[in-house]
Amino acid sequence: MAESPFTLHSRSSQSAARRGEVRTAHGIIQTPVFMPVGTQATVKGVTPENLKDLGAEIILGNTYHLYIRPGHRLIRELGGLHRFMNWDRPILTDSGGFQIFSLKDLAKITEEGAAFKSHLDGSKLFLSPEDAVMVQEALGSDIMMCLDTCIPYPASRDEVIAATALTGRWAKRSREAHENRAQLLFGIVQGGMHEDLRAEAVEELVDIGFDGYALGGLSVGEDQEQMLAVTSYTAALMPEDYPRYLMGVGTPEDLIEAVWRGVDMFDCVMPTRNARNGMLFTSSGRLVIKNARYRDDPRPVDELCDCYVCRNYSRAYLRHLFVAREILASHLNTIHNLHYYVNLLGGMRRAIEEDRLAEFRRNFYLQRTDTD
Amino acid sequence: MAESPFTLHSRSSQSAARRGEVRTAHGIIQTPVFMPVGTQATVKGVTPENLKDLGAEIILGNTYHLYIRPGHRLIRELGGLHRFMNWDRPILTDSGGFQIFSLKDLAKITEEGAAFKSHLDGSKLFLSPEDAVMVQEALGSDIMMCLDTCIPYPASRDEVIAATALTGRWAKRSREAHENRAQLLFGIVQGGMHEDLRAEAVEELVDIGFDGYALGGLSVGEDQEQMLAVTSYTAALMPEDYPRYLMGVGTPEDLIEAVWRGVDMFDCVMPTRNARNGMLFTSSGRLVIKNARYRDDPRPVDELCDCYVCRNYSRAYLRHLFVAREILASHLNTIHNLHYYVNLLGGMRRAIEEDRLAEFRRNFYLQRTDTD
Repeated sequence: MAESPFTLHSRSSQSAARRGEVRTAHGIIQTPVFMPVGTQATVKGVTPENLKDLGAEIILGNTYHLYIRPGHRLIRELGGLHRFMNWDRPILTDSGGFQIFSLKDLAKITEEGAAFKSHLDGSKLFLSPEDAVMVQEALGSDIMMCLDTCIPYPASRDEVIAATALTGRWAKRSREAHENRAQLLFGIVQGGMHEDLRAEAVEELVDIGFDGYALGGLSVGEDQEQMLAVTSYTAALMPEDYPRYLMGVGTPEDLIEAVWRGVDMFDCVMPTRNARNGMLFTSSGRLVIKNARYRDDPRPVDELCDCYVCRNYSRAYLRHLFVAREILASHLNTIHNLHYYVNLLGGMRRAIEEDRLAEFRRNFYLQRTDTD
Repeated sequence: MAESPFTLHSRSSQSAARRGEVRTAHGIIQTPVFMPVGTQATVKGVTPENLKDLGAEIILGNTYHLYIRPGHRLIRELGGLHRFMNWDRPILTDSGGFQIFSLKDLAKITEEGAAFKSHLDGSKLFLSPEDAVMVQEALGSDIMMCLDTCIPYPASRDEVIAATALTGRWAKRSREAHENRAQLLFGIVQGGMHEDLRAEAVEELVDIGFDGYALGGLSVGEDQEQMLAVTSYTAALMPEDYPRYLMGVGTPEDLIEAVWRGVDMFDCVMPTRNARNGMLFTSSGRLVIKNARYRDDPRPVDELCDCYVCRNYSRAYLRHLFVAREILASHLNTIHNLHYYVNLLGGMRRAIEEDRLAEFRRNFYLQRTDTD
């Protein structure tokens, strides 16, 4: 088994939070970390330089989308995903499982893998666990994810058992198919909302041996309390000396609480998607930029924020751009929201280093006064 | 009469082209110059920093659009258009006349001014020549344009005479309403396709006395030959010691030919609008990025171009972004096309300085081999 890519720097004495780093082929990521989502070989609306300016250390790419368009072979021919999209820092790719699962009636899961129809043209496609690794190797991502089976919520215990067992068998096949060890491979812990099944899933994956472990099957419709309960007990079962990644989560509040419970890595479309819809994250809460109250507001989006947008533009201008449906609205809103998320994690890293995460968390909630 | 803001640096011995500069409240513009169009207080899809990086010295704002949304009073309250949109270099605003004219049945022109309905909500509005100056003074642009009456093409000689005469009377009223002399005011020469009427219009405007003179009523449906014929004889009649601005023109070929005929300033939506539609300008011709031939093309858009896009991205990537309808497609395509236009004028400036504009023009046409 390969050496862990994770180094633990320090722990919070107030919580299960950890401060560490993950070493990848394209550099070292400081954790806890938020990964902006770049579905189609671009983080929607921003350039790689914008991402670096706002402090992003790693981004996520979606294997399902890239497999369908423009295709992993084309990306490999053109030098891999980093070169294709002009991003030289680490990239994590998901396995495509979640997107295929989201196709619902267009997908059929068998022991062998996932048969599905392209959402673009309806063409019939098939992705096995081995294919998912091969596609991600062609993309050249730094961290690859095993193909997993997603579990609907709510689901019966039997459904959860069956899906978790299949995820385990696919994880073993993924590890065996994994050739380029310079690319890390993470296993995904399923098990639904059942502590015993999560525990079994962790054990099975650790037996196989991965470079990191992800919490899958959360943020699928359960409430925050349940999500955090599962995160708490599952994170506590995951190996201490490997990175822990909570997939697809979440709100700023979710990130604070999940870091508190020992999670190291996050991705979510919320900051980018909400930006395009005009919902901005600020230290005092959420701000809906189209609201009439911002029509002549000369203040920046967040007076405590030092991002490019808050240094240069008023709420009134951002409201005008949004109302006028200008492209620049999406660009600027995305820069602000990603800066908020990336720097929220930066603040948590410093708080863990200085062992004041409880104070950081308390202040975070105290500041939320002005939500639209 | 105020001193001219224009200084002539040198002349082409091969043509009527001139190399000069225009002094404005926000800095000096080197001419001939191309002005990117920023209709709604943003050049669509790019930031002020992008514009500076690609070499833009001055941009254009549309008075009609800003008057309707967000309103000139709001922009004045927020410190003027420069501050509102975070652009500290010169801005030229048009008068709104062309956009009102384009509303066709929604607009009615009288001696007093233009009555029209907002294209946004149908509300009834009125703009007199005095209003147009007042609105532009509120916006705080560096160069303001007189409200003019646009002439349909084709039009009878009598129609042209009437509209040109009204434009003249409005020009006089505009100059009288012009209070802030730190903002320059340009008159607009109408006269349709009639040399004698153009000559009378120039004479009338020069008698009133403006800080610069614009060629209006071109690029309205006439062919290039006719447009250039009118440009030739009208430019030759315009005062030598004032800037000459050809409004709303045009293709790269149009710009070469109009500079050759003595024009100093240009604006056009073509580079920005075509960018969003995937049509890119290159040294060898036009390139339609969605074409299948670029699917796996690792080359930059233009191998002779040193813009941010050509230094960092392949045609294959830009095609992918365009086909996938990603926002970044508009952003990158706009940067490239504006760089092309702005630097085409930069190349002409150097060619005039070195008195080799004929060679520059010949090479320009020789390079056009590879048009999609």
